[in-house]
Amino acid sequence: MAERIAGPEIERLIQLLARLPGLGPRSARRAALHLIRKREELLAPLAEAMQVARERIVVCSVCGNVDTYDPCTICRDNRRDSKLLVVVETVADLWALERAGALSARYHVLGGTLSPLDGIGPDDLNLKSLVGRVANDSIEEVVLAVNATVDGQTTAHYITDLLAPLSVRVTRLAHGVPVGGELDYLDEGTLVAAIRSRTDF
Amino acid sequence: MAERIAGPEIERLIQLLARLPGLGPRSARRAALHLIRKREELLAPLAEAMQVARERIVVCSVCGNVDTYDPCTICRDNRRDSKLLVVVETVADLWALERAGALSARYHVLGGTLSPLDGIGPDDLNLKSLVGRVANDSIEEVVLAVNATVDGQTTAHYITDLLAPLSVRVTRLAHGVPVGGELDYLDEGTLVAAIRSRTDF
Repeated sequence: MAERIAGPEIERLIQLLARLPGLGPRSARRAALHLIRKREELLAPLAEAMQVARERIVVCSVCGNVDTYDPCTICRDNRRDSKLLVVVETVADLWALERAGALSARYHVLGGTLSPLDGIGPDDLNLKSLVGRVANDSIEEVVLAVNATVDGQTTAHYITDLLAPLSVRVTRLAHGVPVGGELDYLDEGTLVAAIRSRTDF
Repeated sequence: MAERIAGPEIERLIQLLARLPGLGPRSARRAALHLIRKREELLAPLAEAMQVARERIVVCSVCGNVDTYDPCTICRDNRRDSKLLVVVETVADLWALERAGALSARYHVLGGTLSPLDGIGPDDLNLKSLVGRVANDSIEEVVLAVNATVDGQTTAHYITDLLAPLSVRVTRLAHGVPVGGELDYLDEGTLVAAIRSRTDF
């Protein structure tokens, strides 16, 4: 920018908004203007919600979820099946499974996947606490709900090896055609998996 | 969501973030998680920048720009050509022209366009103050830098009629091929305009 067109306060707001995933410099400017226009309806409550989040949100020391309680609401929910532990890469994945309402279990958030190229090794993930939970709690089945990516599958194999001495049942998500998916748009790997795992109609 | 998976504080943060332009419910969740992960580097400064913006940003009473000063930095900049007034629809358009550094003038932000279908009439735009500025200040040319949309052009025609009694020169932006644009991807209207306004090479 050749010269200053607005106060440094607005510039700073734009720069910080641009660091949010999904917002670039252009959409950050739009978002900043939107916030300034909707000062009382949106800017004020959002500033406050962020302040509250900053002060009150903690990472669950048991599973790695984020909540305002530690242990988190899920870990303290006694109606959930305590024999079932679902391993996910991120809190976003945990939320996605909860939204789907697929099962009533507890979770363990790895905080990423093994990725030698990015320098992420076993010590960078919450693996030690996973082994501890499986060894000490009465867990009978560990569901590896990791992404169907190379890194995700590498991590799944690593965890399977890690849990082998504990003789717990380790399962993984099924591969197949997404509900509502069109065959023409699916990759060959998914189609092969869907054919191999076909079920009676 | 079948049951509460995280505290209401996180839910509220997500809901408010989802109201930003460019973010939907899914990207708002991603943004919230990103903020929680980067609590000290991003969440804290962003909460603070929003608080500052809320308290200090004002709308310029002269031109409608947003700034921490009133009149704004641009209106108080005496090095700008005071004979030239650029009419824009929104502050975002003002910023875009300033970034381009196309001219050193003052601005007038309409706050939208005439849009009978949306119930936006002349009284909803900053038109009275525009006539006032042109009548009282020593303005010689008004550049209508509105969007090349139906509503934008309707508004441009309306303003031209409005300013006719003041015998000020009224100009509009040139139509043509965008710099870097490929003819094959341009609409017919733009191509016709570009041919009609062709210049010597």
